[in-house]
Amino acid sequence: MKLTILGCHSATPRTNTNPTAQILEIKNHMFLIDCGEGTQVELRRNKVKFARVKHIFISHLHGDHYFGLVGLISTFRLLTRETELHIYAPKGLKEVITIQMKLSNSWTNYPLVFHELTSKKTQLIYEDDKVEVHTIPLDHRIYTNGFLFKEKENERKLKMNAILKANINIAYYRKLKQGADVENDDGVLIKNKDVTKDPIPAKSYAFCSDTAYNESIIPIIKEVSVLYHESTFLDKNEALCIPTKHSTAKQAATIAKKANAGTLVLGHYSTRYDGYTAFKTEAQTVFENVLLAKDGKSFEF
Amino acid sequence: MKLTILGCHSATPRTNTNPTAQILEIKNHMFLIDCGEGTQVELRRNKVKFARVKHIFISHLHGDHYFGLVGLISTFRLLTRETELHIYAPKGLKEVITIQMKLSNSWTNYPLVFHELTSKKTQLIYEDDKVEVHTIPLDHRIYTNGFLFKEKENERKLKMNAILKANINIAYYRKLKQGADVENDDGVLIKNKDVTKDPIPAKSYAFCSDTAYNESIIPIIKEVSVLYHESTFLDKNEALCIPTKHSTAKQAATIAKKANAGTLVLGHYSTRYDGYTAFKTEAQTVFENVLLAKDGKSFEF
Repeated sequence: MKLTILGCHSATPRTNTNPTAQILEIKNHMFLIDCGEGTQVELRRNKVKFARVKHIFISHLHGDHYFGLVGLISTFRLLTRETELHIYAPKGLKEVITIQMKLSNSWTNYPLVFHELTSKKTQLIYEDDKVEVHTIPLDHRIYTNGFLFKEKENERKLKMNAILKANINIAYYRKLKQGADVENDDGVLIKNKDVTKDPIPAKSYAFCSDTAYNESIIPIIKEVSVLYHESTFLDKNEALCIPTKHSTAKQAATIAKKANAGTLVLGHYSTRYDGYTAFKTEAQTVFENVLLAKDGKSFEF
Repeated sequence: MKLTILGCHSATPRTNTNPTAQILEIKNHMFLIDCGEGTQVELRRNKVKFARVKHIFISHLHGDHYFGLVGLISTFRLLTRETELHIYAPKGLKEVITIQMKLSNSWTNYPLVFHELTSKKTQLIYEDDKVEVHTIPLDHRIYTNGFLFKEKENERKLKMNAILKANINIAYYRKLKQGADVENDDGVLIKNKDVTKDPIPAKSYAFCSDTAYNESIIPIIKEVSVLYHESTFLDKNEALCIPTKHSTAKQAATIAKKANAGTLVLGHYSTRYDGYTAFKTEAQTVFENVLLAKDGKSFEF
C-alpha cells in the first residue's frame, strides 16, 4: 500500500503549497482522493499514469478539494482516454461538471460515471474481489465524507514442505489457500493449519478531511492501518476549530489513539504556520506513530 | 503599457507550460485576460497585487481559458477582498460560478458583477476617462470574443516657452491641452498649434485567441499598437486549423500586416512542437515586428 501526497494544504493554492489531493495505490488500484486546483500538473510531476486512475473520490465541495477535477476530466478527453472513469462525490458535482462540458461543447469520449453521495451514514460505495471502499461521515461546514479503503483478507500461505510431505494433490492448493481442510492422495483428512501459514494481514487506509473532532467516526475506522486525519490548526488555535469545523493536531492524535490506528498521517495545514514539525510534536504527546504529509512525498505501508 | 504573459499554451496545463492568462497594465488598470487553471498561482509568482485586479475578460468557455477563474474568485473571498470585481464573459459563466458558490455555501463578501456577452458584433463593454474596451468577435468552435483595449487620446503637450512669450493666462492651459485656440492677455487669438505639441500617441492592444484566420476582425483592430494573435500551429500543419478553428503563425502575421499593427505577439502554441522559434521565423516571412509570448515574460510597449 503506497500513499502519494499531491497536495496537503488548506485553502488556496500558492507557489509552493498545493491544495488536497492524494493517490492511494492499493491492490493494483490507483485511487485519486480529492482533486484541488493543479492536481493534474501534480499527477504529471509525480509521474502517475493518467490511464491508471479509474476511480476518484471527492470528500466535499469546497474548492480546495475539487476545483482541479473539471480540468482533469477535460485533459483525459484531450488525451483520447477510453477507459471508464468513476467519480464518487457529494450530490451536485455532476451538475457542475455537466454544465461546463455543455458550455464548452466538449463531451467526454470515455464513459464518465458519477456516484453521487447523500447518505449521512457509512456506506459501502465500491467493492471488488480485492478491496472495498466505505464512506466515513464527517462533521464539516458542508456535507462531507471521508473514505475507508480496506483490503479484503489475503489468502493463507502454503507451507510447501509440509504439503509435499502430506502427499496433497496440487488440485487442492486453491482450497488450502482459502482455509479449507482437504483429503490427501491416501484419503486422510489434513488439517489446514498444519500445512498453511496465516496470510499477510489485510491493510486499510482511512482518509478523514475536512472534519471537526468527531468521535462518531471511531467505530468505522477502528484498527485501521493508516489514518490520514486533517490537522488544520495547532492546539493553541483550537478556538478556530469551532467556527471552521476543523481539527487540531492533538485532536487528530486523539482520534488515532481511540481508534487504535497503526499510523497517523497529518495534513491540511493552515498556511498561518511557518513549519509543520510542531504538528508532529503536538500529536505525539497523545499518539506515538505520527507522520507529516508533504506535497510530493510518498509513504509505503 | 505593459503585458505580462502568465500562460500562453494551448490545451492542458503541464509542469512547465500554463494555459492562457495575461495581465495588461494600461492607464493604471490591471486587466486580467483569460484565466486558465493555475492562474492564481501565476499571479502570485509574478507578484501581481490581487486587489489591483478589478476587471477580468474571458474570451470563451473552453477550459484552458477559464478553469482557474472559480478558484481565483474563491481565493479573493478568503483574502477578505472588499473591492468590486467585474467579469466580462460569454453567457453561461455566471451560472457555472454561482452553482459552485451555492454548493460550497461560500458567497463572496465583495461585489461580484458579471457582464455576460452574447453579441456577435463588436461592442463597447467598458469605458472610463482613460481607456475603452471593445469586443472582437472571433471565429472559433464556440462563441468567442477577443478584446481591444484602447487608450483615449492623450492631451496635447504645452510648449512653455512659446506660451510665456505669447502672454497666455494660466487659466487657459487646460483648454490648450484639449486643442483649443485661446486669446492672450492682449486680446489676440493664439493658434493652438503654435503653442502646443502633438500628444503621445494613444496605445492600443488587441487580444485575439482562440480563432481561425478571420479577416473580418481587421477593420476593428486597424492600426492597433500591439496585436496578440493565437498561432496554435505552424504552416506545415495548416490542415489542423480547419477542424479546430485555430490559426498558423503565418496566418497571424497576415492579419497583423493587413491590420497594419505595430507589433505582433504570438502565443497559444500547440504542445506538439518542441521549441517556438519556428513560429517567429514563419511569421516574419509576412510581417517583420514579431515577438514570442512566453510564460512569465513581460513586454513594455
